[in-house]
Amino acid sequence: MKLYDLEPSGNCYKVRLLAALSNIELDLVAVDFANGEHKQPPLSDLNPLCQLPILHDGDLVLRDSQAILVYLAGQYGGLAWWPAHAQGQAEIMQWLSFAGNEVEHSLCAARLVSRFGNDLDKSAALARAAVILPILDAHLAQHEWLAMGRPTIAECAVYPYVALASEGDVDLAPYANILNWLARVEALPGYLAKP
Amino acid sequence: MKLYDLEPSGNCYKVRLLAALSNIELDLVAVDFANGEHKQPPLSDLNPLCQLPILHDGDLVLRDSQAILVYLAGQYGGLAWWPAHAQGQAEIMQWLSFAGNEVEHSLCAARLVSRFGNDLDKSAALARAAVILPILDAHLAQHEWLAMGRPTIAECAVYPYVALASEGDVDLAPYANILNWLARVEALPGYLAKP
Repeated sequence: MKLYDLEPSGNCYKVRLLAALSNIELDLVAVDFANGEHKQPPLSDLNPLCQLPILHDGDLVLRDSQAILVYLAGQYGGLAWWPAHAQGQAEIMQWLSFAGNEVEHSLCAARLVSRFGNDLDKSAALARAAVILPILDAHLAQHEWLAMGRPTIAECAVYPYVALASEGDVDLAPYANILNWLARVEALPGYLAKP
Repeated sequence: MKLYDLEPSGNCYKVRLLAALSNIELDLVAVDFANGEHKQPPLSDLNPLCQLPILHDGDLVLRDSQAILVYLAGQYGGLAWWPAHAQGQAEIMQWLSFAGNEVEHSLCAARLVSRFGNDLDKSAALARAAVILPILDAHLAQHEWLAMGRPTIAECAVYPYVALASEGDVDLAPYANILNWLARVEALPGYLAKP
């Protein structure tokens, strides 16, 4: 099973993190992002959005880190990381959306500017971060884990760009509950260090 | 089962559309959005992101239209709209992410500016729309439905803001495959007209 991967990408790391935590073996294929390999065939045929990661498992090709998490956890991870019932899936899904929208357009965007020179609007990204971090912190004041009272793919989706916040010049010091949750994720058996 | 609802919202319409297509009864609670009811308790306690829709079913409270689609389809919709296997769920999940990120920050954002006077960057939204619509059109040139060869919650998530594109001054005329797909959705039994 191939993962088209970029080491510093938080979205790729989401998938590598789940694979490490749940003992799923991935064949990592390093993509030459700097030279735009992801924008040319065959990769642009596998994902016309020209983003990474991409998973290739037999006949199945999947784009989008959140979709890949659902597949890997559901297909190979038992019920530990992605349950079979609608209520649990929806509880987790709220945080997959939070990762793919709120976190992506705040912490991830700020890091893309600071670390990789992307031309996104960093001040807008930081303003969004200042809105969502207190909400995340308040949730984690009352919950040990994001959903279902246990680690799930919600952690794999949300942890990476929160853990990498300082690379976008976001200080997590005011958010004690977030810091404690990051430490809990980092103490999970099999945890893979962030990029 | 209560849906805190705003009639013109495409995100709320996603949920109402699934409910109509799959015969799920919802008790619609109209929220006084203009006066900020969603930003005050009790609604801001139900969803600290202060967005609509919010679903309240017994003890369960869910935010995020995509998460609500997963719950309603999984809990009440049989396997027609959200299957039980990982491959199908992940195929659909790609389009839930597409709806919550790519469509939200292009077609939805442009409509929020044009129709509701929101201060988002409309030219950036239109530029994103010009990137994603050809990708969607190319997919629909080869697929009758977004995922799994049949209508699923992917349609409920992606259809609304695509169907409302003209309200953000986006012309769908160049995208014949998208127009044909919109017509197929609109011909589904139980289809609920867009806002």
